[in-house]
Amino acid sequence: MSDTPEHLSELRRDLHRHPEPAWREFYTTARILEEIERIGVDDVFVGRDALDLDARTGVPDDDELAHWRARAREAGVDDATLEQLDGGATGTIAVLERGEGPTVALRVDIDALPRTESTDPDHEPVAEGFRPDHDDAMHACGHDAHATIGVGVLEAIADSDFEGTLKVIFQPAEEVIGGGRAIAESGHLDDVEYLLATHIGLGHPTGEIVAGVEDILAVANFDAEFAGEPAHAGGHPDRGRNAVQAMATAVQNLYAIPRHGDSATRINAGDVGGGSASNVIPEAAYIRGEVRGETTEGKEFMREHATDVLESAASMHDCDVSIEWTGEAPSADPDESIREIVFSAAGDIPAVKNRLQSDDLGGSEDATYLMQRVQEKGGKATFVGIGTDHPDGHHTATFDVDEASIGIGIGVLTRAIQELTHQRP
Amino acid sequence: MSDTPEHLSELRRDLHRHPEPAWREFYTTARILEEIERIGVDDVFVGRDALDLDARTGVPDDDELAHWRARAREAGVDDATLEQLDGGATGTIAVLERGEGPTVALRVDIDALPRTESTDPDHEPVAEGFRPDHDDAMHACGHDAHATIGVGVLEAIADSDFEGTLKVIFQPAEEVIGGGRAIAESGHLDDVEYLLATHIGLGHPTGEIVAGVEDILAVANFDAEFAGEPAHAGGHPDRGRNAVQAMATAVQNLYAIPRHGDSATRINAGDVGGGSASNVIPEAAYIRGEVRGETTEGKEFMREHATDVLESAASMHDCDVSIEWTGEAPSADPDESIREIVFSAAGDIPAVKNRLQSDDLGGSEDATYLMQRVQEKGGKATFVGIGTDHPDGHHTATFDVDEASIGIGIGVLTRAIQELTHQRP
Amino acid sequence: MSDTPEHLSELRRDLHRHPEPAWREFYTTARILEEIERIGVDDVFVGRDALDLDARTGVPDDDELAHWRARAREAGVDDATLEQLDGGATGTIAVLERGEGPTVALRVDIDALPRTESTDPDHEPVAEGFRPDHDDAMHACGHDAHATIGVGVLEAIADSDFEGTLKVIFQPAEEVIGGGRAIAESGHLDDVEYLLATHIGLGHPTGEIVAGVEDILAVANFDAEFAGEPAHAGGHPDRGRNAVQAMATAVQNLYAIPRHGDSATRINAGDVGGGSASNVIPEAAYIRGEVRGETTEGKEFMREHATDVLESAASMHDCDVSIEWTGEAPSADPDESIREIVFSAAGDIPAVKNRLQSDDLGGSEDATYLMQRVQEKGGKATFVGIGTDHPDGHHTATFDVDEASIGIGIGVLTRAIQELTHQRP
Amino acid sequence: MSDTPEHLSELRRDLHRHPEPAWREFYTTARILEEIERIGVDDVFVGRDALDLDARTGVPDDDELAHWRARAREAGVDDATLEQLDGGATGTIAVLERGEGPTVALRVDIDALPRTESTDPDHEPVAEGFRPDHDDAMHACGHDAHATIGVGVLEAIADSDFEGTLKVIFQPAEEVIGGGRAIAESGHLDDVEYLLATHIGLGHPTGEIVAGVEDILAVANFDAEFAGEPAHAGGHPDRGRNAVQAMATAVQNLYAIPRHGDSATRINAGDVGGGSASNVIPEAAYIRGEVRGETTEGKEFMREHATDVLESAASMHDCDVSIEWTGEAPSADPDESIREIVFSAAGDIPAVKNRLQSDDLGGSEDATYLMQRVQEKGGKATFVGIGTDHPDGHHTATFDVDEASIGIGIGVLTRAIQELTHQRP
Repeated sequence: MSDTPEHLSELRRDLHRHPEPAWREFYTTARILEEIERIGVDDVFVGRDALDLDARTGVPDDDELAHWRARAREAGVDDATLEQLDGGATGTIAVLERGEGPTVALRVDIDALPRTESTDPDHEPVAEGFRPDHDDAMHACGHDAHATIGVGVLEAIADSDFEGTLKVIFQPAEEVIGGGRAIAESGHLDDVEYLLATHIGLGHPTGEIVAGVEDILAVANFDAEFAGEPAHAGGHPDRGRNAVQAMATAVQNLYAIPRHGDSATRINAGDVGGGSASNVIPEAAYIRGEVRGETTEGKEFMREHATDVLESAASMHDCDVSIEWTGEAPSADPDESIREIVFSAAGDIPAVKNRLQSDDLGGSEDATYLMQRVQEKGGKATFVGIGTDHPDGHHTATFDVDEASIGIGIGVLTRAIQELTHQRP
Repeated sequence: MSDTPEHLSELRRDLHRHPEPAWREFYTTARILEEIERIGVDDVFVGRDALDLDARTGVPDDDELAHWRARAREAGVDDATLEQLDGGATGTIAVLERGEGPTVALRVDIDALPRTESTDPDHEPVAEGFRPDHDDAMHACGHDAHATIGVGVLEAIADSDFEGTLKVIFQPAEEVIGGGRAIAESGHLDDVEYLLATHIGLGHPTGEIVAGVEDILAVANFDAEFAGEPAHAGGHPDRGRNAVQAMATAVQNLYAIPRHGDSATRINAGDVGGGSASNVIPEAAYIRGEVRGETTEGKEFMREHATDVLESAASMHDCDVSIEWTGEAPSADPDESIREIVFSAAGDIPAVKNRLQSDDLGGSEDATYLMQRVQEKGGKATFVGIGTDHPDGHHTATFDVDEASIGIGIGVLTRAIQELTHQRP
Repeated sequence: MSDTPEHLSELRRDLHRHPEPAWREFYTTARILEEIERIGVDDVFVGRDALDLDARTGVPDDDELAHWRARAREAGVDDATLEQLDGGATGTIAVLERGEGPTVALRVDIDALPRTESTDPDHEPVAEGFRPDHDDAMHACGHDAHATIGVGVLEAIADSDFEGTLKVIFQPAEEVIGGGRAIAESGHLDDVEYLLATHIGLGHPTGEIVAGVEDILAVANFDAEFAGEPAHAGGHPDRGRNAVQAMATAVQNLYAIPRHGDSATRINAGDVGGGSASNVIPEAAYIRGEVRGETTEGKEFMREHATDVLESAASMHDCDVSIEWTGEAPSADPDESIREIVFSAAGDIPAVKNRLQSDDLGGSEDATYLMQRVQEKGGKATFVGIGTDHPDGHHTATFDVDEASIGIGIGVLTRAIQELTHQRP
Repeated sequence: MSDTPEHLSELRRDLHRHPEPAWREFYTTARILEEIERIGVDDVFVGRDALDLDARTGVPDDDELAHWRARAREAGVDDATLEQLDGGATGTIAVLERGEGPTVALRVDIDALPRTESTDPDHEPVAEGFRPDHDDAMHACGHDAHATIGVGVLEAIADSDFEGTLKVIFQPAEEVIGGGRAIAESGHLDDVEYLLATHIGLGHPTGEIVAGVEDILAVANFDAEFAGEPAHAGGHPDRGRNAVQAMATAVQNLYAIPRHGDSATRINAGDVGGGSASNVIPEAAYIRGEVRGETTEGKEFMREHATDVLESAASMHDCDVSIEWTGEAPSADPDESIREIVFSAAGDIPAVKNRLQSDDLGGSEDATYLMQRVQEKGGKATFVGIGTDHPDGHHTATFDVDEASIGIGIGVLTRAIQELTHQRP
């Protein structure tokens, strides 16, 4: 298969219209469960049965969860399903058990980003009427397409003469690097012989496939809270301890952490704020950010420097700071043998115009936790790139995917899974 | 009178429990109107009849107003009253017309600050059960007491043999320096011969009165919005234009604007924020802040430098910035003759332990617009400080007033108004 | 007298041509000693005999002193005199003892600033040929005129029928706040009944006299040295510890120390540097700066914050910092009685067009150490402002004095000293 | 040969004792000329005859040149030689013409860095008595060894039966990226068929050879001068325009230029300063720095951002800035064929313990100008790394070389040149 069937295009648009950030994927998980039920599988693990709950990071507080649960309920999710997903235990694993073959897993991620989508009338989701109603989240990284691909592959394999076990993992909370480890440590991967993780886009056009994406940056996320003392900004600025000055000093110096001679690095203060009113010396401020490194050493270099910067910026302005490292993922590399099989499978799909053995990601992905786990247990893993024409960069307000690429992705992955069945020694 | 009567203490606590920031004083105005009706006055001007609507600044958008109107409705305000206050036209003026004497005005302000009140069990409003239910506003500057003093004076004068005209002005939006000019330009002050404005606390204890507060800093508020370009923080940080870096650079350099040799100055970036997710280069950020000067020249020096800093910080990071100056108030000084009368009146109130002719405010107040207007038309004005034991500084989470000072304030101001009646040449 | 005699104009220009910064006043002291010898005095204390050596601050190292001693030798100073000034013990005190009257002291300062003088052909010292040959120092604060006034007063009193004791103190190292305390603790002031300190200019025109300059800011100077680690900027920036980043962070945050509600404050990072070559991560950097306060409390507030900023900026970039507080002066106020005498004396000088009882300095002066010492011992002190038309601000490259004011200053101070003779009870 | 002969060790130490930064290599060039004369060559081009004078960058002003010329004269250089090197036209090219073979060039650089050498008694140059007398320069990058290798190779080839032409280029001003282009455009390379450039150390131990160093970063140097306005820091800080604040803001934001997704980048503010005295608002400041990129695009990205930062930092503080780009070098890659010959030649030298085909430089080198020129004309070029045990990093105060590596370098390069003779088709 490589055309995208109507019902999967509809599914993708429905998910796009209901974007939910990390650990809030109530509607998304419910919708996926509907599809799994439609397809018919041998086993399904939902929420806390799919995760090691203690290994989650970046889980929001109860108020925030309640807010999104309420929204899912308004969108039609029933209470029984919501109960299964209690406390931010979202995501699901669907299992097909078909005879004696090897155990293969496909991992797709399902969460959205907390950003506003464009309202430009030329932006496809606007033009076609599936832009979300709310401004607080957006599928700006294509995970709506990923979830759809997961459903499509499940459906295709279920309809085939596949022999073996297929686990399709619908992982929550990738964007906060919060869900990968919880899946990895759930035990569900411990018998997996072949793992395929996948991502759409990444600068590759529709019709291009990367059999093994490399150079996945190690990453760590932090949440720093600065606490000072308020004061009247007119009468006694000297009596305040200014948390916004501490934050601003930190931002400036975070971006100025030295470049590393041996490892590309990244730093971002992606979400910051502080203060309350213009006439009050600000008593509180925060930075939510991340560091990355081409190597784990490079990431640790950034983490140590970031910690120094945050603590010194606080002490400079007589503030306190608490730093929480909320999520983290290692680096990982694809195995040559499984990459070859994907490369070869892609050659069998007519809509694939161009195949690459490998390319650099230049970003991070907590799929690396799953890949590491499988590799540690003796299995093989790769990270497959599915090209899609995207009009603008990942994470921007006008990001979008070419739906034709969903069918191509389903085709390549289904073909690869079938090939893997025959790999048993 | 100088004890605080039970019904006024209850009024103050009711207002404290329902704090409403600038232009959102729906419940507050409704509650004051109830009191005015109870007292019985000769004329009352509500909302748009009390204000020059075009002279307002800092009015929030419709969504925000709707949110607070809904809250007021929940708290029991009827639709007819809400209609009178449509579009953020809050506040009211109550008029007593009693014979031939001079026209005297008393101005009190009624808005709260957008900050969270302490939940410390020792904090009086917590202990006594009148802390607000919501965390988004607080009477951290005593305007609940001011409104109560306004009602108390109106009641006392109404019950007296006062001859003349008294206008009690319940002004909205002082904290954003947004309402003073709208009252000043409404015309209601143009026949006022004597204006008393007042503030509680300011570091003076209960029983102390300042007849003429001086050194009211000129102030201007700004709202700066930085616009950049988002990008994937891992893949292509170079493709972003980072609005948070622009904002942080601005914050650092705003506070570093040179001190002035001839004028005390102030600067505050009191409310800042930016970005969306830790893995997106932040495309938007904002600073809401203020500049002040002991002199208008000093304030203008700060405004010019702040503008340079904001614009240069934006261009440094290839961002755009729009700067709106949202509120402003001049400096003003009390008139000697009216200050003398207040000083003398305070001597007649037994609970007044200490009288000061003058003291420095060291802060700002848009009462200066009203004072200027009256002075330009040939009237006299002063700004009266009413001491109150306050356990913590103005604008902090544990600010509170000693309710005994409300009765003292009512006593002093009522006595001064009666004295002013006899000043007619 | 109030014209400036030719020989004093020549003296002033000679001193101007040979500017010497703090503790390097070898030529200057030698030149003053020549004048003292010409006039003939009863006693003279040179260098270490005029100072408490241990109370000096800001003394440069031996290399620097050797450099300036060599320059003085080239300019004609003999070795015997240089030996008297060994180790940066510059300055001198000339004493006239004439009978029974009170002991009066006049203090003038003699050092220059380490800055380059303008080469503008319209700048008087350029036009008239007395700009210094070297670019490393400049009399940009009029101390050349102060020294000349000291000589002029000594000469005038020596020629008069003055009865009493006059000590003219030629103080070194005022600009670094380094010499005042060394004079104060030398013992030479302990029998002084009346002390006159003086400064030219300060924004007052020629012909204006301020009998008692007030509001002399308390000041403290610091010297912060940052030590990091070098590295190749191309190969391994990560291996450096960047002292210039520490310094820049400190500069930004020093200027951003909060304004104080009760005291005007000042901060300046007046001399900074760091690094060596563009391709080496800078291992060292320094800031020489100062803090000031209208009150001692205000100055201490600034000092504490500055210390926090310097230390946190160092730790942020993994550098060490050593902070030395190199000079300091308290606040001081003129005594009313002596101010009155100066005011009255100024009235006797025809060239004085305008007399002020007092005015704010808005700057600092280590004359306050001398004033405090005299006042503690029961004497009276004032700080006299001598107006001079100065085309540009103090400390700028085009600062200059109107030489007519030198004669006026000599006239006023001589007259005041004569009046003080008759004050003995 | 692979032991280092006594006379070359002495030469290296003599050069080390007389370090001279870019365009000031008067003693160094004179000393090399002595060696060339001793060896006897067929042609020699000195200073302006070796360079395209107009293509030089980073040439210091006349005063600076005079200072170093005087020092060279004191160290014994005669006036005739100094005249040949007039105006900073240093460096030399020695030519051996021996029959029909190909033209081979060897390029070594000869300048020192403007930094202070360690005085640690364990530091070899201190222990062995060849640390420089002055503190203003140091051979902290091994160019003393490079020059010695150049002499050693010239000597070895002169004594051999080499057939062809050998040009040994002693290039000035590499550290400021100032001399490479001047050599490249002199015409002396236009007939060169094989170019060997070389560098010692780079993290490789004694006995290790890198046949073709790759990944030479493109680089551009800048010199930014900020001009503001001075003012008295106590009296009127508001009247100043603070160049040090502009500089510090620029430093902070230069290091914070975004990382690039496609190219490693570098930035350094390696030499900064500003201001004059602690009590003067600083009117002038400067930054000497550099940007680098793995690709030319990456370097240009940095240059554009650096320009924005410098200009915006100036405008933020109402200062002017002039930015001069003082030196620049492109990227370049070794040719495979010549690299193979060097690799093979290294195998013939017994003291070579380890050979690498290639390794990353991670730094910059203006040898790339020479390599480009030769490659454009159809020749082949490589950049040979000669390992040396160095106790500390390049550009640090305790950098030193293992002199044994000088002999090894001479051996490898001499052998490679002899091999290249036989390459003629």
